[in-house]
Amino acid sequence: MKALVFHGPGQRSWEDVPNPTIQDPTDAIVRVDAVTICGTDLHILGGDVPEVTDGRILGHEAVGTVVEIGPGVRNLAVGDRVLVSCISACGRCRFCREGRYGQCLNGGGWILGHLIDGTQAEIVRVPFADNSTHKVPDGVSDEQMLMLADILPTSYEVGVLNGALRPADVVVIIGAGPIGLAAVLGAKLFSPSHIVVVDLVDSRLDAAKAFGADIVLNSKSDDVAAIVRDLTGGLGADVTMEAVGIPETFEQAVALVRPGGHVANMGVHGAPAMLHLEDIWIKDLTITTGLVDTYSTPTLIGLVESGRLDTSPMITHRFTLDQFEEAYDVFGKAGETGALKVVLTPTRT
Amino acid sequence: MKALVFHGPGQRSWEDVPNPTIQDPTDAIVRVDAVTICGTDLHILGGDVPEVTDGRILGHEAVGTVVEIGPGVRNLAVGDRVLVSCISACGRCRFCREGRYGQCLNGGGWILGHLIDGTQAEIVRVPFADNSTHKVPDGVSDEQMLMLADILPTSYEVGVLNGALRPADVVVIIGAGPIGLAAVLGAKLFSPSHIVVVDLVDSRLDAAKAFGADIVLNSKSDDVAAIVRDLTGGLGADVTMEAVGIPETFEQAVALVRPGGHVANMGVHGAPAMLHLEDIWIKDLTITTGLVDTYSTPTLIGLVESGRLDTSPMITHRFTLDQFEEAYDVFGKAGETGALKVVLTPTRT
Repeated sequence: MKALVFHGPGQRSWEDVPNPTIQDPTDAIVRVDAVTICGTDLHILGGDVPEVTDGRILGHEAVGTVVEIGPGVRNLAVGDRVLVSCISACGRCRFCREGRYGQCLNGGGWILGHLIDGTQAEIVRVPFADNSTHKVPDGVSDEQMLMLADILPTSYEVGVLNGALRPADVVVIIGAGPIGLAAVLGAKLFSPSHIVVVDLVDSRLDAAKAFGADIVLNSKSDDVAAIVRDLTGGLGADVTMEAVGIPETFEQAVALVRPGGHVANMGVHGAPAMLHLEDIWIKDLTITTGLVDTYSTPTLIGLVESGRLDTSPMITHRFTLDQFEEAYDVFGKAGETGALKVVLTPTRT
Repeated sequence: MKALVFHGPGQRSWEDVPNPTIQDPTDAIVRVDAVTICGTDLHILGGDVPEVTDGRILGHEAVGTVVEIGPGVRNLAVGDRVLVSCISACGRCRFCREGRYGQCLNGGGWILGHLIDGTQAEIVRVPFADNSTHKVPDGVSDEQMLMLADILPTSYEVGVLNGALRPADVVVIIGAGPIGLAAVLGAKLFSPSHIVVVDLVDSRLDAAKAFGADIVLNSKSDDVAAIVRDLTGGLGADVTMEAVGIPETFEQAVALVRPGGHVANMGVHGAPAMLHLEDIWIKDLTITTGLVDTYSTPTLIGLVESGRLDTSPMITHRFTLDQFEEAYDVFGKAGETGALKVVLTPTRT
């Protein structure tokens, strides 16, 4: 088969590799029908994730069709259409048993395209298949479903739920990339009074507006702190969410929140930030971090099925699998191309 | 009357001042029957709290007898014995109405001995008296009650409850001063499997052991991280509480917690700490900060009444009010004197 193979920082190619095979009784082999690229893949190519080694097939999001199952798989059958989640889960360890699948202690967690070969391929081996996939309901498209592999549950669990967003809150989302925009979709489910989105790129702020942000602010030209103060009677936002992954935006998220408020970090960080305890020790803040667990995926599937969540605006570009390298170029230059999420399929949809 | 008056950093004296009088209809005037000194008072004398100005009477903890009430006071009568809480609360603002009294927007919060004259006096004016005092039940001593003015609710709310401590948890409390020791008392209420206390001073660790710590560790000689790892199957503590107020101990509290765990900051900080987001973005941590609200004071009074909480071991030294300067000397040199909390009364008890 063909797959997108990592060959060290900056090096990737769509090339021939052996087909995956069942290695453990709980494995399934899935033919990839739709796959996407994550900002995390760009971090890997940038050399920020040193555990990913030369020869690794990238990708941790897919929708596909089961073509083979190991003897220990109970929930799936050959021919089933499934979402391959970014999180694999043994389902039996201490953390899995409390729904904290991202922290799986038996070799699960974020492993696809990281510690084992991933989904950016014609065929993928999915470990712990019963707990690492979700069946695609009738009437839900592959594209809608694909957005539930990572960005929607990440923004919903790590941003909206960890941030304890409540109706009538003012929420500030810093960063209007795919995760920040997905957080806008998730935040809308809780009827906040104002969704404020902050970014440096006007085209991304336009997208945020289209996704449902009430107020969009460009940090380069707007006095974000003053505007949030004015909007909140001088107190600050009820909830802030960080969706960039650099110290400055995390520190901004802490500075913008009110006494008693929540700061939900969603960004993948490579450097420490300053925590101004001299200001916040007295402020009753709750700061959360987290890797997605995907415990909310069934909820999000239900919302898509019922029409209450529409993930399709996330997708800006479509390619066939043999255009994978071009797709990386377009996604990697999102500032120029306006790409949010790209979708790749075996043949043109 | 006489009172302990602040005259700028390092300067304090027990001296004659005018008696306080009713200034607002919701004021009460309380004769002080028992009063203590807080670590925060030492911070004030160290010049760390610049809002406290020359001439201010210090102190934010007392038990006393109501001698006069304003026309707007409903819950109290002359002659009532009351706890004067460290937090005053208007009871009507947005934050008070959600029980977040420490953040009162109408001039309450921590004001006694800070923004208005405090309790280290023969008589004190207590604003918002209905919501800033608690009646002393029959059978509860002034000394037991006095410990509920600040340190017990602070450690209980900001440490134990914010830390979401649960039965069977391993909790690490960093700092064995009065707040850390009070956190041991509070933690015991939730039946953790192990209470680990960390400090640099062996005499304080001995006190922690006496208060109920299961394991005490001296950071100078023990490999705290390795011992906590061994105790927790390599994962880290379920809950860590910071009770010192310096960057190093906060960073230690973050480093010692397990994936999915809670870090509850109780310390009063004067400097920022490094938050190692590059390590913790993926770890599902919850970090909380806070000023006490005293919403738990009735709970704690009930625990003292029923004999389930004994605060008396906190008190190591007793003085009369006219020995206030000596009491400060003893409390200020706790490392030498072994002082935890000192109690001052009008006459020798």
